[in-house]
Amino acid sequence: MAQCAPSGDSPAQRLHDELVRHGLLFSLGVKGAFGYSGTFEQILELFDRRISASARHDGAETRAFPPIVSRHVIERHGYLDSFPHLCGSVFSFSGNESQSRDMARRAAAGESWSEFQAMTDVALTPAICYPLYPTLSGPIPAAGRLFSLLGWAYRHEPSDEPTRMRSFRMREFVQVGTSEQVSAWRDMWLRRSLKLLTDLGLDARTDIASDPFFGRSGRLLAANQKEQRLKYEILIPITSANMPTAVCSFNLHRDYFGSKWQIRTENGEPAHTACLGFGLERVVIALLHTHGFDPGTWPAPVRALLWPAD
Amino acid sequence: MAQCAPSGDSPAQRLHDELVRHGLLFSLGVKGAFGYSGTFEQILELFDRRISASARHDGAETRAFPPIVSRHVIERHGYLDSFPHLCGSVFSFSGNESQSRDMARRAAAGESWSEFQAMTDVALTPAICYPLYPTLSGPIPAAGRLFSLLGWAYRHEPSDEPTRMRSFRMREFVQVGTSEQVSAWRDMWLRRSLKLLTDLGLDARTDIASDPFFGRSGRLLAANQKEQRLKYEILIPITSANMPTAVCSFNLHRDYFGSKWQIRTENGEPAHTACLGFGLERVVIALLHTHGFDPGTWPAPVRALLWPAD
Repeated sequence: MAQCAPSGDSPAQRLHDELVRHGLLFSLGVKGAFGYSGTFEQILELFDRRISASARHDGAETRAFPPIVSRHVIERHGYLDSFPHLCGSVFSFSGNESQSRDMARRAAAGESWSEFQAMTDVALTPAICYPLYPTLSGPIPAAGRLFSLLGWAYRHEPSDEPTRMRSFRMREFVQVGTSEQVSAWRDMWLRRSLKLLTDLGLDARTDIASDPFFGRSGRLLAANQKEQRLKYEILIPITSANMPTAVCSFNLHRDYFGSKWQIRTENGEPAHTACLGFGLERVVIALLHTHGFDPGTWPAPVRALLWPAD
Repeated sequence: MAQCAPSGDSPAQRLHDELVRHGLLFSLGVKGAFGYSGTFEQILELFDRRISASARHDGAETRAFPPIVSRHVIERHGYLDSFPHLCGSVFSFSGNESQSRDMARRAAAGESWSEFQAMTDVALTPAICYPLYPTLSGPIPAAGRLFSLLGWAYRHEPSDEPTRMRSFRMREFVQVGTSEQVSAWRDMWLRRSLKLLTDLGLDARTDIASDPFFGRSGRLLAANQKEQRLKYEILIPITSANMPTAVCSFNLHRDYFGSKWQIRTENGEPAHTACLGFGLERVVIALLHTHGFDPGTWPAPVRALLWPAD
C-alpha cells in the first residue's frame, strides 16, 4: 500500500513520523485519514470529558449524529456557494447484475468505475451542527435552547499534515436564541475554552478568523466575516509558530439558520444561532506535541486534570 | 423537511414512531439516518463498556478508524463483486470558480449537480475491519494478534426500519492467526456474546447465516457460505418473530485477507482471520424494545449490569 507521509523534512513530516513511530496514528494509504491507537483514543475521550465537565451546569441537550447528512440540507444551507471544494458527496450503484459485473471488472483492473455510480440523497457532514437545524423548526422558549453534539466531519482537503485530517471528530455546542443571548454565550465560551486549553499547559490564544471560502469572490466574504467579527478561533502553534493551528472555532450565524428552518424566538422573529466546535484530534495532537508522545511522562498537573481518578 | 417514517401500520413503523415519540431518535429527512438522544447514546456507551469488560483479559490492541477507507482497499477486497449495491463512494468537486457557480446554482434550483462531482480516492467504510488488514502486512507472532475496533459503517440500503440504518456504529474484534486459532476464538466469542446479551434479558439465539450477496450469482455464494459455516449471527426478535434482527455477526475469512495483504504466520503461511461485530444501535433498540422506552424502569438486574456504579 502506498505510503502517504508528507514529503521533505518539514515540521509537518517530522510530527507525522513521530506520531506513526510511537504507534499513535496508523497510515491508511490516503492523505488525511488515519487509524487511531488506544492511547490516542483515551486522550481524546478524556479531553472530551473535560469539555463536558466544564459545561455540566449549562443544561445542554445531547445529540449525536452519523457522518452523513441529507443532501437537501447541504443544498439549502448554501454550502456549495461557499465551500464547493470541501464537500464530499455520497454516490452508489443502482444498476443490474450485468452492469455490476462490468463495474467490478473495471475496479479489479484498476480502471475507473465512476460511471456506474450515481448521486444519492446524502453527503458527508461538513459540520456536526448541520443535521441539527432542520430538527428545530418552530418556536423556542425565552431562555433559548442549547445543544451538545458529537460526530465525524468530512472536509475534502487531502493534506500531508496530521493536523489537517479529512475525516475528524468535532465536539460542538449550539446555542439558539436572541442575538444578545447567542453573543453573550459565544463570549462566555471564548473565555471558558481558552482556560480549558491553557490549564492543560497548551500555548493557546484567541484570534478573529474567517472561513476558507472558495475562489476570488470568497476573499470578499472572508473580509466581511472578519470585519463583522463573526468568527473567532483558538490557535495553538503545532507545526508552525507563524501559522498556528485552530483547535476550536466560534461562529455567529445571525439568523441564517433560523430563517432557513423557521426557528422562531418567543416574539416570532427568526432565532439567532451560534456554534462552537473543538477539533478533537487536533487537541490530542497539540497535547502530544507539547508534553511528549508518552502521556505517562506528562506534567503532573496536566495528568491530574485529564485522569482525575488516578 | 420530508418525513421518512415507515408507511403503513407495520411493527417497524410502530417501533419507529415510539423511538421518535420518546425523543430517543430524531429523523434526519432521509431513510436510514437518525440523530441520537443523550439517553440513546448513554445506553450505547454502557453496552459497549460491557463488551469491553467481557474482553478485558484478552489483551486486544485498540484501534479506531474514521468512517472513510481508501477506495483501493474496497477494490482489492473484491467488495464490488459481492456487494456492489451496498457501497457508498465519495465524490468531490475539483473545477474552477465558474464551474463552482454553475454547480451551486443548479443545487439551489433543485437540479442535479452530479456532473460536477468526480470520484475521490476514498469510500465509506462498509466494515470497521476493512482499514485494518492493510496495516498488518508481515509476520505475526505465534500467539496471533487480536484487535478491538470501533467506528461508523455505511451500507447503502435505504430502509424504513429503524433496525436497518445506513450509517451505524460497529464494535468489532479481529483475530489473526492459524486456522485453528481463529476458529477456536470465534467459537469462544459465540458463547460469550450469547451470554452477554441473554444476561441483559434479551431473547437472543445463534444461527448459521449468509451475507446479502448481490444478484443471482450471489445466491450460490450465500449457499456455499452457509454450507461451510463461515458466518454465524446472533438474532433477537424486534420487529418480527419470524425474521429476527441480527445484532452480532461472526465471520471466518480463512486466508482471504492474509493472502491479499501478505499477513503471514510464523511458518510463512498466509494468516487466517476472523472478525465479529456488534451492531451497537441494534442492541440499544433491542434493549428499548424489550424493557421499555424509559431505561429508568428497566428490570433491576439489567440496570445493575449496565450501570454498575449505581
